[in-house]
Amino acid sequence: MTMTTTARLLNFGPGPAMLPAEVWEEASENLLSFGDSGIGIAELSHRSPEYGAVHADVEDRLRRLLGMGDDWAVLFLTGGASSQAFMVPMNLGTRGDYVVTGVWAKKALAEGKLLGDAHVAASSAETIFDHIPTDCDWRDDADFAHITSNNTIYGTQYHTFPETPSPLVVDASSDILSRPLDMSRFGLIYAGAQKNLGPSGVTVVFIRKALLERTPDTLPTMLRYTTHHEKNSLYNTPPTFPIYMVGLVAKWVENQGGLAAMAEHNAAKAKLIYDAMDASDLYIPHAATTDRSHMNVSWKLADDSLQQAFLDGAKAEGMVGLKGHRSIGGIRASIYNAMPAEGCKRLAEFMADFAARA
Amino acid sequence: MTMTTTARLLNFGPGPAMLPAEVWEEASENLLSFGDSGIGIAELSHRSPEYGAVHADVEDRLRRLLGMGDDWAVLFLTGGASSQAFMVPMNLGTRGDYVVTGVWAKKALAEGKLLGDAHVAASSAETIFDHIPTDCDWRDDADFAHITSNNTIYGTQYHTFPETPSPLVVDASSDILSRPLDMSRFGLIYAGAQKNLGPSGVTVVFIRKALLERTPDTLPTMLRYTTHHEKNSLYNTPPTFPIYMVGLVAKWVENQGGLAAMAEHNAAKAKLIYDAMDASDLYIPHAATTDRSHMNVSWKLADDSLQQAFLDGAKAEGMVGLKGHRSIGGIRASIYNAMPAEGCKRLAEFMADFAARA
Repeated sequence: MTMTTTARLLNFGPGPAMLPAEVWEEASENLLSFGDSGIGIAELSHRSPEYGAVHADVEDRLRRLLGMGDDWAVLFLTGGASSQAFMVPMNLGTRGDYVVTGVWAKKALAEGKLLGDAHVAASSAETIFDHIPTDCDWRDDADFAHITSNNTIYGTQYHTFPETPSPLVVDASSDILSRPLDMSRFGLIYAGAQKNLGPSGVTVVFIRKALLERTPDTLPTMLRYTTHHEKNSLYNTPPTFPIYMVGLVAKWVENQGGLAAMAEHNAAKAKLIYDAMDASDLYIPHAATTDRSHMNVSWKLADDSLQQAFLDGAKAEGMVGLKGHRSIGGIRASIYNAMPAEGCKRLAEFMADFAARA
Repeated sequence: MTMTTTARLLNFGPGPAMLPAEVWEEASENLLSFGDSGIGIAELSHRSPEYGAVHADVEDRLRRLLGMGDDWAVLFLTGGASSQAFMVPMNLGTRGDYVVTGVWAKKALAEGKLLGDAHVAASSAETIFDHIPTDCDWRDDADFAHITSNNTIYGTQYHTFPETPSPLVVDASSDILSRPLDMSRFGLIYAGAQKNLGPSGVTVVFIRKALLERTPDTLPTMLRYTTHHEKNSLYNTPPTFPIYMVGLVAKWVENQGGLAAMAEHNAAKAKLIYDAMDASDLYIPHAATTDRSHMNVSWKLADDSLQQAFLDGAKAEGMVGLKGHRSIGGIRASIYNAMPAEGCKRLAEFMADFAARA
């Protein structure tokens, strides 16, 4: 297939985020006919052998990448991380401990409070979420301990995970597949797809099978993790195209060398931008040095009045999506797996040039 | 763009179902860059002006097609019709009356029973859901009355809607946009997209705004219709690509002449197959004549042993997805909006030929 494509911009937006062009090219070739099946990928019955093979392949790739054994269930759900904020306490128990490291953690806590006895184990709210708290008040008898592994708005990230008395539940929406994880440390990991995994419309949930025993059978069928586990995420019609895309992205990650290679690549990409930031007094980092995220880099300009010129200048060089979240303003560069090193290099060079001219 | 495509089969599957080829062609051209934006359609931020315009356009087209005024809210949710089965009683009140006309109605009833005082107003279960009951025991003080407008498995369809003392709630997953609806008759209509609206991954909910006042604020945020109404279905990241596809399908329906034209077209398509069925004793219709669906045609062969030969013969002529649902067996032809009349004509001709040879 030949495509006459407009030049793609370097999209530093926080999500839905850029995905590798080759992934979209493969998808494009399968919209009207998946392989030689004569039926488009998103027109296949979710009960067909063709889609069944795709569905199984996506799960297999995620299991391989993260080293998940048979003690883990892999679920493909919908409703985003926002829905896991209430499904976790509904299924695991409503006595949850939360580390509040940003807007998404606060939202998860709020849903936990609606449903039961949610407790703040630690918070960095007082310093506008500029760091990851390490001194946490965990309860021995909590049903779970909830953290957000990467905080998109503030640009902080857990580089080591806490020891918790109750099963550790992680919202990994913005850094899943960006680095290896020691799965023995976790009870449940969830992630909306639209940053590192694929387009929006599917949420992956990795849950230790032992925790499935907690699901109350009084919950609506669709809200039980057990329903989706028992039916292989095919109880109802799943979001087949988004799931297919997650598979293409996972294949791409494998082709890049897997998660260890991605982690190295992402650290090097982030360093290019942090180095540019640290090299000039014009740039004021938001995150504490030790907790700097490799996925989202947040900073302000020392002179606020230069911000629009910065954004305009970057845009003129094909770099977009750099405006910080409205809650803290400033600049944010989201550099998920699919952002090439070349993109980070160009941004770093622009930052140096802009600082020199300012 | 030139595409080397495999010949597309005539896909009579019940869903995810075929969509018009031109819709996929347009989508394909926008995967790597939406128009000349330099960012793929599914890579646009859901907060971007570009996606915002798409989102608003999809809503506008649905409003125009169905003649919905300002007294209606249009929501784009996820979790399929299966999730509306519990969201309806959670939001509208748990005293629901249900007409049980098939598997999906039974599932909605089961969720209603889990949550409160669900009542069977009528059922056609005793005759394997071969008709739409008209004699219903509606309660004057119910919170809502729930029906399934089209029953995919059994091939029955409401051709006139009941008068009910409480607001009428309709699962229209398998016939939405197939015909005009007098919206003054309904309180809430929901539909999973994957039959007539688009790919799987988005659920549309049309709700009379007055009913939004019933939503309890004790519900988890994502489960409240009010959340999605107040935030224009952008409280969290919506399934942007599936929503975009719904817009392309709605545009295609408008280009076909709108819902009155679709209804005429669909009736004529269905007649081709029903006529072929009625012309031979080999074919035994499942649905009562008066309640025959224009979306799904279900029948058996008088001689069961010929079924596989029927399916194989159809497949040899490029017609697939005709196997009946496992719960009743037999043959089913799903002929949603996107199935061309030519497809129904070819199936009818095959049916006549097969009967003549049998």
